[in-house]
Amino acid sequence: MHPAPEHMSTEEFRRHGRAVVDWVADYWDRVASLPVLSQVAPGQVRAGLPDKPPETGEPFTAVLADLDSILVPGLTHWQHPGFFAYYPSSTSGPAVLAELLSAGLGVQGMMWQTSPACTELEQHVLDWLAGLLGLPDCFTFAGSGGGVIQDSASSAILVALLAALHRASEGRVQTEGVDRARYRVYTSTDAHSALEKAARITGLGTAAVRFIGTRADSSMDPKALRTAITDDVRAGLIPVMVMATVGTTSTSAIDPVDRIGPICAEFGTWLHVDAAYAGVAAVCPELRWIQHGVADYADSYATNPHKWLLTAFDCDACYVRDRAALVGALSVVREYLRSNVSAADTVVDYRDWQVPLGRRFRALKLWAVIRCYGVEGLRAHIRHSVALAQRFATWVAADDRFELMAPQPLSLVCFRLRGADEPNRQLLQTVNASGQIYLSHTMVRDAFTLRLAIGGTATRDEHVTAAWDLLSSTASGLLGD
Amino acid sequence: MHPAPEHMSTEEFRRHGRAVVDWVADYWDRVASLPVLSQVAPGQVRAGLPDKPPETGEPFTAVLADLDSILVPGLTHWQHPGFFAYYPSSTSGPAVLAELLSAGLGVQGMMWQTSPACTELEQHVLDWLAGLLGLPDCFTFAGSGGGVIQDSASSAILVALLAALHRASEGRVQTEGVDRARYRVYTSTDAHSALEKAARITGLGTAAVRFIGTRADSSMDPKALRTAITDDVRAGLIPVMVMATVGTTSTSAIDPVDRIGPICAEFGTWLHVDAAYAGVAAVCPELRWIQHGVADYADSYATNPHKWLLTAFDCDACYVRDRAALVGALSVVREYLRSNVSAADTVVDYRDWQVPLGRRFRALKLWAVIRCYGVEGLRAHIRHSVALAQRFATWVAADDRFELMAPQPLSLVCFRLRGADEPNRQLLQTVNASGQIYLSHTMVRDAFTLRLAIGGTATRDEHVTAAWDLLSSTASGLLGD
Repeated sequence: MHPAPEHMSTEEFRRHGRAVVDWVADYWDRVASLPVLSQVAPGQVRAGLPDKPPETGEPFTAVLADLDSILVPGLTHWQHPGFFAYYPSSTSGPAVLAELLSAGLGVQGMMWQTSPACTELEQHVLDWLAGLLGLPDCFTFAGSGGGVIQDSASSAILVALLAALHRASEGRVQTEGVDRARYRVYTSTDAHSALEKAARITGLGTAAVRFIGTRADSSMDPKALRTAITDDVRAGLIPVMVMATVGTTSTSAIDPVDRIGPICAEFGTWLHVDAAYAGVAAVCPELRWIQHGVADYADSYATNPHKWLLTAFDCDACYVRDRAALVGALSVVREYLRSNVSAADTVVDYRDWQVPLGRRFRALKLWAVIRCYGVEGLRAHIRHSVALAQRFATWVAADDRFELMAPQPLSLVCFRLRGADEPNRQLLQTVNASGQIYLSHTMVRDAFTLRLAIGGTATRDEHVTAAWDLLSSTASGLLGD
Repeated sequence: MHPAPEHMSTEEFRRHGRAVVDWVADYWDRVASLPVLSQVAPGQVRAGLPDKPPETGEPFTAVLADLDSILVPGLTHWQHPGFFAYYPSSTSGPAVLAELLSAGLGVQGMMWQTSPACTELEQHVLDWLAGLLGLPDCFTFAGSGGGVIQDSASSAILVALLAALHRASEGRVQTEGVDRARYRVYTSTDAHSALEKAARITGLGTAAVRFIGTRADSSMDPKALRTAITDDVRAGLIPVMVMATVGTTSTSAIDPVDRIGPICAEFGTWLHVDAAYAGVAAVCPELRWIQHGVADYADSYATNPHKWLLTAFDCDACYVRDRAALVGALSVVREYLRSNVSAADTVVDYRDWQVPLGRRFRALKLWAVIRCYGVEGLRAHIRHSVALAQRFATWVAADDRFELMAPQPLSLVCFRLRGADEPNRQLLQTVNASGQIYLSHTMVRDAFTLRLAIGGTATRDEHVTAAWDLLSSTASGLLGD
């Protein structure tokens, strides 16, 4: 008999575990002093790693040592208080501890039976979150719908499109495949590329995607949408899905769901609302206007607690009004996955709500975050971020060298130096190279525009002030003030 | 200015973190005493949870208390030494600690620039693993290929099919969509349902899937494959992908890749090898025969270290021979995701290798597992599991009441009581209700068959012996011996 390998004993796990907990706490304590954007050259990290793995096991302390010396310099620090690029990927103590619990439990939630609590906690916490966001009961398990945690908003868009195709074809796509020439999907010119990716993945091809023009505030123009759909229907095409965005990636523009919805209803088109970044702001009653129309018209809705609601990636909360359409699109059952309870249809088997079969116990982290912050704590985080962004915007507006490039209804500020693009590129490059802050960019009305996205867990007043000071003084240098 | 919420301080995180580390260690110490298959009724877990989330934050200790009282009874314990269902989802101390590090770092690996070390460690460790498995350089970044961590083998199958469609259409699917009437995909009648799911997702529909008959050992019959492809080509269809399985979900049958491969080569068909469970066994040179033909013929190959190689879910190692085909199929770039280094094509941006955009730092756990076990430790784990399974099979073979239903080349044993299905259903139900062991079932040659899958981290000699004793004595009771 071959003996078992030497596993790490639980006593060793306790010892190394305490060291790792301290490593993480130390990291959070010192992350503000590290360069937020990694300054390594391509290939530099790999060059520090040995060509071959070790023949015999090494202690975990060796892993931690190499983490410090080789990997940390190669990290861009998303939890740094000066991280303002893209959108935040905010984590928190409760979320991280829950991830540790999830990893330690090591259960699979593909079916109810494979770990009932994994499924039922997810149903429950997503029902909680629906209530916190002001979504109606039809998106919960009390109604005909329900929520599921996807890894990302991209995956939510993909499964929404699959459900839409399933509904539009009355299930025929399952066997017959997709009639690429027949279906069209719609989104604004400013929407996330994930819909194009989903159109490619589902076999529609990007030619099936109609990009609808935007209004002055970069939100989708509902009149243009109506025209596009009407033209397509006249041409014999089927408008299968509209994706409206609540908080676009580029500028956080908010599409008018209350005006897009009636058009979808008129043509029988599935309405998916991608609220990846902004949706969680609706935990604050005064910001709930951003999803006006969702309750009445959306067929599916997704927002990412892993972006701005303190829940570690990956945690996209994806809701559908009619769970039968989603399950119909994705359910394939083989004998080795049959169980008595599933057959009785008394339980949810989340394998049929997503692309992969297996799934981690991700509900634990959302549950821990909601409980440890409480509703008031979540609201305080959102309100704090919004207030910081509004103040930053007033500084930009008050400085004649700069201009605001889009409204900032939430915590993203889009701005630039007036005039040519080149000084703006230099400004971005210079401040990012400083290691103190990290911003990304976008194009607004064909102009190179800087984005300052607030919402990181560690970001405070002083960090936003320091960011403005650095941007302003760097601009002075560039402009030769 | 709205103040920031009260976040868990790093001092509190250290304190609660130690408690969580101890909770996990205690859980591992006691898991063998818990019923492996949860005994809750549908809805029971939800009934124990409050209808609404708390208004104000609660201490993390409250989360742990409810975890104990409400959730743990609702868990099916995948890390229990008596868990023999499906395939193992084996985790380990190093993997769990690395998950904690990954959560604490909270970086996004969607592009090289968003955290270079996240990307480069993944490239490096997957190159290491390719070497450990005996895969040739063409599947590494030293060649034209490379590896990527997907969440699951289902996602690996999906991206392989997308790459195959991209290649077969010379990129036209990107814009034009998929010509569902034209393409066919092939797999054995015993293969995983994930290919059907992928065919539906990609718009081909299940009608495009040809199920190829199997030989006596449940492996794909290459002659039948050749006939099916030849017929389809004659009919003007394009054989776009064959999925061969190394270790089927049902019985761990191993398709003859060395005979399937030449057929794919002849017809220009993409060959994906799904080695989700079994592939990692190739870390042992004496088991490397299972992937005979992969080096010469596979276009893509995937195996799950999260199943049998001690790495916590999710960690599917997915390799392609030609990374350009995969990136061509999945790359969609918008301005807000542009970076100078990406444009220079000197780095890997893993967003273009997968369905979602965002990604966790999953390479850390595979790195930690390989380093802490060393090559010899990984081999010892595989050899131990195989030895335990072989011994169990000898007990079954020696008992006239039972019959083995398939070869057991690795660590899965398929067996049943001779005769009717009903006593076998009762046997399964009775032993699973005992709480001591958990097995799942499949159908082999239309007969209800029990599956005992070995490979869990905690499973030892005595647990397999106890499983046999329970099965044997339960059978005696059922058969009235």
